[in-house]
Amino acid sequence: MWRLRWQTLGLAAVSLGLALETLGFLVGWLRQQRRRRHRPPRREVLFFPSQVTCTEALLQAQRQGGPQGAAPAPAAAGPDCRRSPGATAGAATSAAVAAAQTTVSSAASSCLCPLPHGESSLSRLLQYVLSARSSLELCLFAFSNPQLGRAVHLLHQQGVRIRVVTDCDYMALNGSQIGRLRKAGIQVRHDQGAGYMHHKFAIVDKKMLITGSLNWTTQAIQNNRENVLIVEDEEVIGKTIYSVGSLGQFEDRPLILNPML
Amino acid sequence: MWRLRWQTLGLAAVSLGLALETLGFLVGWLRQQRRRRHRPPRREVLFFPSQVTCTEALLQAQRQGGPQGAAPAPAAAGPDCRRSPGATAGAATSAAVAAAQTTVSSAASSCLCPLPHGESSLSRLLQYVLSARSSLELCLFAFSNPQLGRAVHLLHQQGVRIRVVTDCDYMALNGSQIGRLRKAGIQVRHDQGAGYMHHKFAIVDKKMLITGSLNWTTQAIQNNRENVLIVEDEEVIGKTIYSVGSLGQFEDRPLILNPML
Repeated sequence: MWRLRWQTLGLAAVSLGLALETLGFLVGWLRQQRRRRHRPPRREVLFFPSQVTCTEALLQAQRQGGPQGAAPAPAAAGPDCRRSPGATAGAATSAAVAAAQTTVSSAASSCLCPLPHGESSLSRLLQYVLSARSSLELCLFAFSNPQLGRAVHLLHQQGVRIRVVTDCDYMALNGSQIGRLRKAGIQVRHDQGAGYMHHKFAIVDKKMLITGSLNWTTQAIQNNRENVLIVEDEEVIGKTIYSVGSLGQFEDRPLILNPML
Repeated sequence: MWRLRWQTLGLAAVSLGLALETLGFLVGWLRQQRRRRHRPPRREVLFFPSQVTCTEALLQAQRQGGPQGAAPAPAAAGPDCRRSPGATAGAATSAAVAAAQTTVSSAASSCLCPLPHGESSLSRLLQYVLSARSSLELCLFAFSNPQLGRAVHLLHQQGVRIRVVTDCDYMALNGSQIGRLRKAGIQVRHDQGAGYMHHKFAIVDKKMLITGSLNWTTQAIQNNRENVLIVEDEEVIGKTIYSVGSLGQFEDRPLILNPML
């Protein structure tokens, strides 16, 4: 009787111990798998001036395999591979734009311009912008770079909802992309305050903030010392998106545009 | 004999099971405590234009209870409470500058100027800058705001190692703080490239990055639509600090200053 009881008790204790250990191990493993699935939030810093590289492949790849079946870009937005004084870039690699890069590598061979076809700070910025799938908010003091203009245009053609807030004075300057974007049907608002609308940020799909000192002009991209931070932070992006709405008042205020455009 | 063996085996199994469970619990608890001690990295976004508030209390508090026994500020850097067109701020609260705020609240009563003594985007920016304990790296296109100039001056007097990189053209403009800081013995370098040194960031104690669209000028602070992001990110800050060194070449290159200063 006693022998049987001790045997049963011993076996039960061993089983319980093993079961609890196995359970603990399983819970730990499942948590680890879950953590692996949810990649850490993206953060990167791009430095300018950017090396001058050909970005045609990126834009062609977007036209060919865009998020929602891209329509061909208009002729006016054709190749624009210009050479300018050399510059350095400090971009680091990440898995952020890997999908775009694979498409780009096959399209790269199609451009025969003499510019280098490698990666640069501008090409990475373009890839981040082109990664938009549903929305793109732009709050830009100055926007005259043709490559970035074409990227925004392409996204608009592919059904990405784009809202632009810009500065009243700077949007009418020579070479500004704002007029072209507005003519393509993109919502554009300009600030009416006394000071400048001096922000320089973009929000991709309400998930990724691209912000820094860089105005989206070729002069700044190719010549100035600039930085652009790319972060995924729900709280910061929530506040920043609110500021886009309050600046542009897209829903409540009628379209206000500089008569020069 | 058998009875004794089963009894021993049972007791050993129970003890082992309990010991393993206790160990697992202890390891989990210790990890939780460690996570609690390491607060999440700081991230905040400040919006400008800033409400015009009195920042005298902040600067007085720094003078009185600075990190390493502050010397009195020179008379030229006295109170500077000016009124200007009203503005709004979008600063959010955080525990980041709680220590400074407690000292400030007692010092606030000492300033009798008619400006509001509450918090604003400028006051929060000042608090972040004044939180420097060992080093402050400034990479600023334009720096003319007197309150921020006094803050940097105070930190220098208190032994904080300050390095400034600025733009060649803008540092000689009327009202620039760069000349005053250099005369106080702060290391200043300016970029010699063809483009602008257009960065607008500060790095506090090699741990906190303050970056965005804001030039440190009163015009921008009080009138422009601007944003400033405050982040603690080791990787991003590492890369950004490297850029300060490579821009200014503090260690290798002799002091280069605009002759107008």
